[in-house]
Amino acid sequence: MELTLTSPLDMHLHLRDGEMLRTVAPLSARDFAGALVMPNLVPPLTTPEDVRAYKERILDAIGEEAFTPYMTLFFLPEYDYDFLQEVKDDILAIKLYPAGITTNSEGGVENFSLDALAPTLEAMSELGIPLCVHGETNGFVMDREAEFIPIYERIAKRFPNLTIIMEHITTKEAVDALMRFENLYATITLHHLYITLDDVAGGLLRPHLFCKPIAKRPEDRMALRKVAFMAHEKVMFGSDSAPHPRSKKEAPGCAAGVFSAPIALPALAQLFEEAGVLENLQKFVSDNAQKIYGITPPAKEVKLIKEPMAVPERYGDVVPMFAGQTLAWSVDGV
Amino acid sequence: MELTLTSPLDMHLHLRDGEMLRTVAPLSARDFAGALVMPNLVPPLTTPEDVRAYKERILDAIGEEAFTPYMTLFFLPEYDYDFLQEVKDDILAIKLYPAGITTNSEGGVENFSLDALAPTLEAMSELGIPLCVHGETNGFVMDREAEFIPIYERIAKRFPNLTIIMEHITTKEAVDALMRFENLYATITLHHLYITLDDVAGGLLRPHLFCKPIAKRPEDRMALRKVAFMAHEKVMFGSDSAPHPRSKKEAPGCAAGVFSAPIALPALAQLFEEAGVLENLQKFVSDNAQKIYGITPPAKEVKLIKEPMAVPERYGDVVPMFAGQTLAWSVDGV
Repeated sequence: MELTLTSPLDMHLHLRDGEMLRTVAPLSARDFAGALVMPNLVPPLTTPEDVRAYKERILDAIGEEAFTPYMTLFFLPEYDYDFLQEVKDDILAIKLYPAGITTNSEGGVENFSLDALAPTLEAMSELGIPLCVHGETNGFVMDREAEFIPIYERIAKRFPNLTIIMEHITTKEAVDALMRFENLYATITLHHLYITLDDVAGGLLRPHLFCKPIAKRPEDRMALRKVAFMAHEKVMFGSDSAPHPRSKKEAPGCAAGVFSAPIALPALAQLFEEAGVLENLQKFVSDNAQKIYGITPPAKEVKLIKEPMAVPERYGDVVPMFAGQTLAWSVDGV
Repeated sequence: MELTLTSPLDMHLHLRDGEMLRTVAPLSARDFAGALVMPNLVPPLTTPEDVRAYKERILDAIGEEAFTPYMTLFFLPEYDYDFLQEVKDDILAIKLYPAGITTNSEGGVENFSLDALAPTLEAMSELGIPLCVHGETNGFVMDREAEFIPIYERIAKRFPNLTIIMEHITTKEAVDALMRFENLYATITLHHLYITLDDVAGGLLRPHLFCKPIAKRPEDRMALRKVAFMAHEKVMFGSDSAPHPRSKKEAPGCAAGVFSAPIALPALAQLFEEAGVLENLQKFVSDNAQKIYGITPPAKEVKLIKEPMAVPERYGDVVPMFAGQTLAWSVDGV
């Protein structure tokens, strides 16, 4: 059995910088035609110059591959219309992080009142710049995403022309909210389609599956699977692949993040085939994103074949999801 | 400020064996007058000879301290009246583990039908041997304790003269269940009074706070605190202090268990003082257990003083709860 995907896209990707960038970027570029690259470097990307320079470093790391890094800017409430007009051509979206909610998000938003955010959001809406949101409060870890939903709703209502992407949704509540507003969309990761909190902390503790938002309950995973498997037009694949060196994952104070980029397509094919919906994978990993963002990625065919993939224990110093395990599908030629 | 406790007891303790036993047993013997020692060695303690030999090793490890190790037997459904009569004088209780639910519990109970358990429970009831239970199903990690409650209720109803201890309870549901049957009692750990899942996985991942049952929600902790702080006669302190070598805690596949025995009394004093209920600590850490189990531990006064305790980074190769932090109270002379 085989499946050829046309221009697969990963609409939520952490490529990091420096040596890590050079390790992981070629792996995404190998399997995908493009990816939305997150701006949470240290310091975060907040100027057109930052974005352009980072894009150059990414292109340098990937070499000859046909792969478009779609760039993002780190949301600051002080961005005004003139600034956004200037930066518009360098980015596909702006990513909003609540302050301190995840890796390198310390400079994020503290005040979610519409008064505080409205000028920037108004300008984004007028200029047609989508808003990507890490939607979690600083409440109890299992409730953070559900607690954030009223904020999504306030923004969606006030700015009906603003395209809002609920990033890496993990709950039934988020799936429900998604359907209530026309301008809400969502990315779904590979790992949240596969795991629940049981896989992280139900047996022995599994730091390589520890991520933010944390994996939730079985009924939440079911809600995510339902919309992903039908390739609902409001959802698209975004791996949130987030590499950390082993020393940061395999020690007390383990950093949040699952590294899934290099095994994402085989693992998705396996899951979609098991669910009997392999024919919907093209929409989930490319077509929906093209429509939501209005983009045309490089023409690139990626052939998946139903032959076992032995997942490496590491890529460089990074342990991938399914390390040492065998997936039922592989990317042809990898 | 100071507080002298008379014969403090830790009614749920893992002392392990070999070198680990020699490291940790003296720390419990230093601060406590006695402890209920869990039987989940490899292999588990299932004969009077096992129990006697283990007790000898414990007494050997603690030396001269006035400290009674109250012994337990690992529950097997094949124990009959004659066997239990023979073992009765060597143990204080029998500990029931569902199969595979926690460290070294592989030989535990698989079939919780009353038909399967009744003969042994009937004999225990007649002989006045209390039943201690690790009450978790193999369901979703946050639901396991609540899902187990109907089993507690069935046993409590069928054997009204059997003293049943719900070990290390972590949920509001368990506190509620406790109140519904006269013959149900519970132990509460130090760590479940302090932490929620947020402390384990809400920020960075904290393997040294990973335990079974996993720490639950803020409202669950509040329910535990309520009954502990009032020293409700149905609850008693049981640390569930469960040492693992660092190599088993600080690596992928981290084992479950919090090592709290050597800091338990100072940390309890701090918590009870903050709650304004310091006068209830004596009941919580000794009097209630004496009544529930009908025991008279060695007379031993342990003086707590409100002077800072710098918690060591390690005891031997084991990292304690609050490692490297400072507690507001200490044990006089330690």
